[in-house]
Amino acid sequence: MDQTAIKELTQAVLQHICVPLEASARHVHMTEAQAHALFGHGLTPQRPLSQPGQFLAAERVTLQGPKGKLNHVAVLGPARKEAQVELSLTDGRLLGIQPPIRPSGDVAGSPGIVLVGDQGTVALTQGVIAAQRHLHLTPETAVRFSVQDKQIVRLQTFTDRPLVFGDVLVRVSSDYADCAHLDFDEANACAMTPGDWGRILP
Amino acid sequence: MDQTAIKELTQAVLQHICVPLEASARHVHMTEAQAHALFGHGLTPQRPLSQPGQFLAAERVTLQGPKGKLNHVAVLGPARKEAQVELSLTDGRLLGIQPPIRPSGDVAGSPGIVLVGDQGTVALTQGVIAAQRHLHLTPETAVRFSVQDKQIVRLQTFTDRPLVFGDVLVRVSSDYADCAHLDFDEANACAMTPGDWGRILP
Repeated sequence: MDQTAIKELTQAVLQHICVPLEASARHVHMTEAQAHALFGHGLTPQRPLSQPGQFLAAERVTLQGPKGKLNHVAVLGPARKEAQVELSLTDGRLLGIQPPIRPSGDVAGSPGIVLVGDQGTVALTQGVIAAQRHLHLTPETAVRFSVQDKQIVRLQTFTDRPLVFGDVLVRVSSDYADCAHLDFDEANACAMTPGDWGRILP
Repeated sequence: MDQTAIKELTQAVLQHICVPLEASARHVHMTEAQAHALFGHGLTPQRPLSQPGQFLAAERVTLQGPKGKLNHVAVLGPARKEAQVELSLTDGRLLGIQPPIRPSGDVAGSPGIVLVGDQGTVALTQGVIAAQRHLHLTPETAVRFSVQDKQIVRLQTFTDRPLVFGDVLVRVSSDYADCAHLDFDEANACAMTPGDWGRILP
């Protein structure tokens, strides 16, 4: 086999037995009304994300916490029913907020924060979390790995600083693309770079 | 047994089968001459560190990289034969430097950086690394865990976000106190808090 064929085969095998790793930078989800309050209009799609239908918005916000602020923070669309700010624990330290480690959507009782846009300000009373590390899987992939929605698994990373993450939440939906989502603390702790893979362990 | 006795026994058992986890913030080691160039005098001990004889200096430096700077960075003493700047990969991103992951002391060919003190500036031509995660063990503890100096082991963390670090370097010396050293990316990836423990796996 020539080198190109070997490379293609290797990729196909990796795709079959592994999951691509992806680092999620800090970002904000918001309601349609909050987008209007912050920017004077709804969210403008700038580029699609790995999960089908999700996009990075052209709009950016400043996060203002009790101890510091972060400028130029990504906003993801489409708009949701409730705002959610996903930070790393490093970000939390800088802002003076201790985000609880929660699955996406589980924001009850989490800390608030102030969002600043170019047209206005929105004070959230809750919504700041550190997203629990998780896997997005299609139903077909979940069957292949013998895992179910909401199962907790371990994830071995094939990265420069290899490790095995515990407490990884499996999410299964036909709306998903296969992908492991880490925050930047986690991505740096394993020295992940784009194109790296992980393996699900029971 | 009363609660106090149970607590004391638990700590004794943990101390026997585990290693305390410690997060190392970004810091600088420097030569005596560099301290004089930066501060006009040698390093002033402010408080002792967990490793015997090592101290946090009263002096602080600013790190100036191609893309950003970090103020008020810790300087550790005593002075060494060669400067070394230990950053997290997160710090490197902010400064615009890609620190290689290296054992302490292995700085050949690593990136340089500019140190700014209250009395002067020192431009390092090399010395910036991300310290490879490592264990400091006394010879007695190394025997108990059946590990040797320079061995690579895994380290399971009993933390809020449990994981198993691979590629953990064992260092053994009678000058050490038992301790696992993580950087802040790694400490946040496992949500370590002071008092947490880890277990050495072969």
